[in-house]
Amino acid sequence: MTAISPLAPERFPDMPPVAGVRMATRACAIRHAGRDDVLLAELASGSSVAGVFTKSSTASAPIHWCRRALSGGQARALLVNAGNANAFTGEAGDRSVERLADKVAEVFACPTSRVFQASTGVIGEPLPDHKISAAIDALHAGLRNDDWEGAARAIMTTDTFAKGATRQADIDGVPVTINGIAKGSGMIAPDMATMLAFVFTDANIPHGPLQTLLADAVAHSFNSITVDSDTSTSDALLLFATGKAKHSPITDADDPRAEDFRLRLRDACLDLAHQIVRDGEGASKFIAITVTGAEDDSSAKRIALTIANSPLVKTAIAGEDANWGRIVMAVGKSGERADRDRIDIRIGGVQITHAGARHSAYEEGPVAAHMKQPEIDIAVDVGVGMGQAKVWTCDLTHGYIDINASYRS
Amino acid sequence: MTAISPLAPERFPDMPPVAGVRMATRACAIRHAGRDDVLLAELASGSSVAGVFTKSSTASAPIHWCRRALSGGQARALLVNAGNANAFTGEAGDRSVERLADKVAEVFACPTSRVFQASTGVIGEPLPDHKISAAIDALHAGLRNDDWEGAARAIMTTDTFAKGATRQADIDGVPVTINGIAKGSGMIAPDMATMLAFVFTDANIPHGPLQTLLADAVAHSFNSITVDSDTSTSDALLLFATGKAKHSPITDADDPRAEDFRLRLRDACLDLAHQIVRDGEGASKFIAITVTGAEDDSSAKRIALTIANSPLVKTAIAGEDANWGRIVMAVGKSGERADRDRIDIRIGGVQITHAGARHSAYEEGPVAAHMKQPEIDIAVDVGVGMGQAKVWTCDLTHGYIDINASYRS
Repeated sequence: MTAISPLAPERFPDMPPVAGVRMATRACAIRHAGRDDVLLAELASGSSVAGVFTKSSTASAPIHWCRRALSGGQARALLVNAGNANAFTGEAGDRSVERLADKVAEVFACPTSRVFQASTGVIGEPLPDHKISAAIDALHAGLRNDDWEGAARAIMTTDTFAKGATRQADIDGVPVTINGIAKGSGMIAPDMATMLAFVFTDANIPHGPLQTLLADAVAHSFNSITVDSDTSTSDALLLFATGKAKHSPITDADDPRAEDFRLRLRDACLDLAHQIVRDGEGASKFIAITVTGAEDDSSAKRIALTIANSPLVKTAIAGEDANWGRIVMAVGKSGERADRDRIDIRIGGVQITHAGARHSAYEEGPVAAHMKQPEIDIAVDVGVGMGQAKVWTCDLTHGYIDINASYRS
Repeated sequence: MTAISPLAPERFPDMPPVAGVRMATRACAIRHAGRDDVLLAELASGSSVAGVFTKSSTASAPIHWCRRALSGGQARALLVNAGNANAFTGEAGDRSVERLADKVAEVFACPTSRVFQASTGVIGEPLPDHKISAAIDALHAGLRNDDWEGAARAIMTTDTFAKGATRQADIDGVPVTINGIAKGSGMIAPDMATMLAFVFTDANIPHGPLQTLLADAVAHSFNSITVDSDTSTSDALLLFATGKAKHSPITDADDPRAEDFRLRLRDACLDLAHQIVRDGEGASKFIAITVTGAEDDSSAKRIALTIANSPLVKTAIAGEDANWGRIVMAVGKSGERADRDRIDIRIGGVQITHAGARHSAYEEGPVAAHMKQPEIDIAVDVGVGMGQAKVWTCDLTHGYIDINASYRS
């Protein structure tokens, strides 16, 4: 629909197979014809699952389904469609999810509680689940272990590029693979960032510790990005672990053998989260915001997100204007403690303010040059404590308006 | 700089003099040459004053000055400049304010604590207060009682039209006048809406009850509007009462004789607040959002403001798209209690949802027609209680990006 984001990675990564994971995609014309818009993934019997979902009080039908299914801790299949969120669809939406679970459970001969589902797209339209049901047998017949890019592409909505990340971790001397795919470019804010992400690993980690490891990764990745402060009804991050790797099970997230896995998982999630920001609707700049000197880490994160979500900050950056006064404004409106006379603002590493005013030696030249780069670095010390946080966002451009003033058309 | 907002009133209102108030404006080239950018107002000796200011922790130097001056409760003069906010200007900014207070106090032969000041414009640039000082004598010599539009025009920044409102109230059988002027079009959000507003009356009401009456008016007007969720360092609303009207003083805000004044003051403030929304940067639609059925009134207001501030709701309206799914999303992200299966959404009076899904009889035609109007009416019942609130905002368009990606240039 639009050109590929100028901030996109050069190419989709080479992703190896994950033992116990197979996928297939198909064009079901859920909303638009001529593109694959349904993904079916098979997880080997005995796979465990962890998940994090939107906190929206108007969450979609598949979110409600997944929350219940997650309590079982095991997964055999994942079904995803793009084009329709099956959100705010009432009883009919729940029935659609149940029918699809029945059909998928049938082909895999498993309990419906091991079938996970996600839907993304327009809100409030009935899901034409019969189109998906009719494709399940063909999807099942076409399962393969090597088309990660196709899978990432099938779940896209307004995304301009397919998003994938892969990492290798070591558990007890045994190499394990972590592969993730994600979609999302608007309606992105923490708790959860509006997006779908599915991460697959062959590690042998049951539901309990897997959930702990996922929560840790989310805090440092998906919950530290924002595009437009809007939170979706459909956000879901699912982590599936097939247990095919030949190490003995990790039964405690604090097990030192899981430390490398924890770091690689966090890293894979951060990679996917950054790609979502880089595909922020209309984005022309990738912006990192570091806040230090806050009362505590939570306060620092709230200040950082207030800066990141300020339309005036985001439009100034779109205009390549070193308008640091708007950063002062955003710190002020955050509601968090800050010492006006000790706020230290740096853009591109250049110190701009000192003692509550513009630094006497400040020259705009180097900052103006930094503003012309595609990656913008903002650092703010608010001068009251030791709290710190880092978040990522993108700018607010005409492209955002173009995309969102015409999404349904 | 840009065309007049399509939502502007047809013309500036005819505003009668207020006994005890005179004003003058002058071009001081604070930021741009060739326009009046300084306003001096004289209040008769014995005038009382009330005020409400930004809650920003990075408030400007004149805000700090006014907060202190307000404790005296009396006013003799008001000095306002556009083009420079004198915010985040450190010690130098405080010195500028003091020098200006000295100069104004000198021409009016009054204590400096009766001189109120406000500045609006760019943040972080030193205020060239010598340019203003040099104009005070000429301003003083030119004071007159009949150029409200000129006064409103002198305080504009990115505003596309001058904003004024006038009301007549009755106190104890005596007619009193309430005249207000305001500026503001971006960085507008509650607590305080980012704006300057100055209201003048000849009513005889001392500081204490005047402050109570003003706080009541603000809650129902300026704190119920939002353009872009950004809060300024410089927001100020000041209400001056000269006491020239021939009624005996109102010494208690609950005095029944003050009831008509209370309502007219609220009405004048709402008129000014609506004009600010109608001049929202790039605005093409004036949007009223009513929320009912919330847990309490505060919850209703938070839900209403979440809808009003959602970039996805605002861009959908800009695109004249009846994308009510985004309203569902915004209700869900507000963090407030709502019953997904009882949410009732109406646009332009047409019921869209029923029992947590699209109403079976819903047809988009009438709503699509309403979306093409310049005034959009959204009503949401969230189905859990009796709380209600109404807020006003505008849409998010290419014009907002145009204005804010180049403000300082």
